[in-house]
Amino acid sequence: MRMVDLIIKKRDSYTHTKEEIEFIVKGVTDETIPDYQITAWLMAVFFKGMSDKEVADLTLAMLESGDKMDLSSIPGIKVDKHSTGGVGDTTTLVLAPLVAAAGIPVAKISGRGLGHTGGTLDKLESIPGVTTALSIEDLLKQVRDIGVAVAGQTANLTPADKHLYSLRDVTGTVDSIPLILASVMSKKIASGADCLVLDVKVGSGAFMKKLEHARKLARSMVNIGTLMKRKTAALITDMDQPLGMAIGNALEVMEALEILRGEISSSPLKEVSLTLGAYMLLLAGACENIDKGKERLQKLISNGMGARKMEQLIEAQKGDPKVVEDPYLLPQAKYISSVLSPVDGYLQSVNTEEVGRAAMILGAGRERKSDRIDPSVGIWLKKRIGDKIQKGDPIAVIHSNDKDKTEDSGKCLLDAYKMGDEKPEEIPLIIDIIGQ
Amino acid sequence: MRMVDLIIKKRDSYTHTKEEIEFIVKGVTDETIPDYQITAWLMAVFFKGMSDKEVADLTLAMLESGDKMDLSSIPGIKVDKHSTGGVGDTTTLVLAPLVAAAGIPVAKISGRGLGHTGGTLDKLESIPGVTTALSIEDLLKQVRDIGVAVAGQTANLTPADKHLYSLRDVTGTVDSIPLILASVMSKKIASGADCLVLDVKVGSGAFMKKLEHARKLARSMVNIGTLMKRKTAALITDMDQPLGMAIGNALEVMEALEILRGEISSSPLKEVSLTLGAYMLLLAGACENIDKGKERLQKLISNGMGARKMEQLIEAQKGDPKVVEDPYLLPQAKYISSVLSPVDGYLQSVNTEEVGRAAMILGAGRERKSDRIDPSVGIWLKKRIGDKIQKGDPIAVIHSNDKDKTEDSGKCLLDAYKMGDEKPEEIPLIIDIIGQ
Repeated sequence: MRMVDLIIKKRDSYTHTKEEIEFIVKGVTDETIPDYQITAWLMAVFFKGMSDKEVADLTLAMLESGDKMDLSSIPGIKVDKHSTGGVGDTTTLVLAPLVAAAGIPVAKISGRGLGHTGGTLDKLESIPGVTTALSIEDLLKQVRDIGVAVAGQTANLTPADKHLYSLRDVTGTVDSIPLILASVMSKKIASGADCLVLDVKVGSGAFMKKLEHARKLARSMVNIGTLMKRKTAALITDMDQPLGMAIGNALEVMEALEILRGEISSSPLKEVSLTLGAYMLLLAGACENIDKGKERLQKLISNGMGARKMEQLIEAQKGDPKVVEDPYLLPQAKYISSVLSPVDGYLQSVNTEEVGRAAMILGAGRERKSDRIDPSVGIWLKKRIGDKIQKGDPIAVIHSNDKDKTEDSGKCLLDAYKMGDEKPEEIPLIIDIIGQ
Repeated sequence: MRMVDLIIKKRDSYTHTKEEIEFIVKGVTDETIPDYQITAWLMAVFFKGMSDKEVADLTLAMLESGDKMDLSSIPGIKVDKHSTGGVGDTTTLVLAPLVAAAGIPVAKISGRGLGHTGGTLDKLESIPGVTTALSIEDLLKQVRDIGVAVAGQTANLTPADKHLYSLRDVTGTVDSIPLILASVMSKKIASGADCLVLDVKVGSGAFMKKLEHARKLARSMVNIGTLMKRKTAALITDMDQPLGMAIGNALEVMEALEILRGEISSSPLKEVSLTLGAYMLLLAGACENIDKGKERLQKLISNGMGARKMEQLIEAQKGDPKVVEDPYLLPQAKYISSVLSPVDGYLQSVNTEEVGRAAMILGAGRERKSDRIDPSVGIWLKKRIGDKIQKGDPIAVIHSNDKDKTEDSGKCLLDAYKMGDEKPEEIPLIIDIIGQ
């Protein structure tokens, strides 16, 4: 088999056989296929797509390219969650301690990610002292001991995906549904959970801008999960504006802690976190239905059990648990200033990617793997779509360590907000549910 | 400027600016853009194409990426010829000595090529002793002395194209009109000729299978040539069957010599060679019209001046000039056997690429740059489309050094020939002429 023939085959709209997919993934893993052939193939896949069978074969081949986590030493049904990513999306920090407090073990392998802010690991590490570099043994022990751990990948899970992703990232081939599918699903299945809850974002701040694409992605994910004998459900949730009010690493931790402390009666971040958490309970057989699951998680907020579990998690990962009750222990930015609305009106729409860029400008995210992020900086939004705003009202508060950057970020933010005279239609937060 | 953004731009159907094209070509030349990004961009170009302006910018940037041949020390108007390539296409060996004998200097830079047989250089080198490795000084001196030279590229012409081509070759991005255009035209213009005659092949043995594509390519080539202030004309010629009767390196030399010695009154190879040669004379102002040009070249065959020029060329390049009158001095294959028609009928069509593959099986071509070709092997075809054939008639003669390969090649050849009861319509040899 020659890679050039497989590239031409995909280029010309033919379907790969299982053997061909295995040949490619093996060549990616052991580096016998040069990167310049892999990226040409990736671009051909971008344009020509893949059949469901090809995606399943790719997922399986990537899964088999490395180690698989063995969670069998943890008693009970293990549930994992994955989000396709968005702005102000810190559901993991809310739901992981709550689901664990409900008695369902959560062994969460998270990432750092590129973009507007860091990933879950970066957010967690903004808590003084916290480490996410756990060995597999430590991770398993921690979950057995306290029911929850959030750590970076140390096992050699899906090395083929790791290599492919690094190439996709620099060749404009990230936004390909079959490639996203195989990447996410192979990684999640390698992480060893029995059940999987997926949060597929749709809107101006998500990979998927269109509902039909998000729905297709969600359906395919559930199909593959089911094929791989994992109970799988997918929620399609709104990313036409940032999910939380905070964008930035320490700021997002702060918002998650506000929810865990029970200070927020209702918010989009809380609603999505609790719904995802309730689905995790449902798949694990720990509640009858979603409403019961949400009630249970709300109770764990009210009685402080969620916050206590978060303290245990932080302490187990060498951080200062006092942060849960005293968020001012988190790193603070030097300059805090409000962005004021220059006009009266209703907030019509938000270019969510631009809001992300406003956070990026401050140093909250990384453009390259080697970039350092500043955990203290970010944006605390004050308005959501549909809010009535008067000229001079603060629409956001910028936390910055550089006054020039504050200004640039503020301009970027104002550009991202579109005001108008009419109150816009309300966008549902949880748009659809696929599976289960 | 970041390469990933340019890949995404092309991927999303946008047009590159001149500066962007220059950035890419510079990055290809000085290797600051990694190959894996270049190939993803090439595949995006394959799918999304390029505007005429983008192709002109790419041609110019590739031209400027290296040295340019300076032919000014050779008196007179210099004309070059380029063919997009096909099977049994050895027009250069016929027309170069004839055009030179007509007094028009021919400084021909040729290639080796991959595929069914070697390139012009390989064919010429099948003549005992001939070298094509001339320094630029030697090449210029030879053209000043005897009016003709055929040599490999020694100057650092269009290094960007060289690098791009090597990547296209292994990533399924060879068959892209804008990339073919820029590659051919930058190389030809860097070779320094004042006028350019292009032979664009169309049919089952050519890059361009469809006339409309060939026509588009020919038109664009003429446009770019004219833009670069080169008198340019393009012929569209048939490649629905091999042009010559010989396929193989020494065999093609043999066929070219038969024409030069005046033994062939009329044949497709002779007709195309003389027409291309006449256009070279016309562009150089050495004849009034094509018919006069062809007459003149025919006279140079009849009076032996063409054959004498070929002897001079071979001698100047250290080969044995006696080969012109005694072709048995060329390397001979061990086994010669006929392929017989298994049925009666008219030859309806030929899968020309398969005929090329039949020659490749014998060792006449190379699959990889490092492969060695066998100059002695090949196929001498006995029939053309429209010929009436009786069962048992030889349709081809295979020259081979390996009996197993003879058999495989023969099977391949029989598969390539489609017979039928009706005499098929005649295909014109010279289908269209663009420019001039």
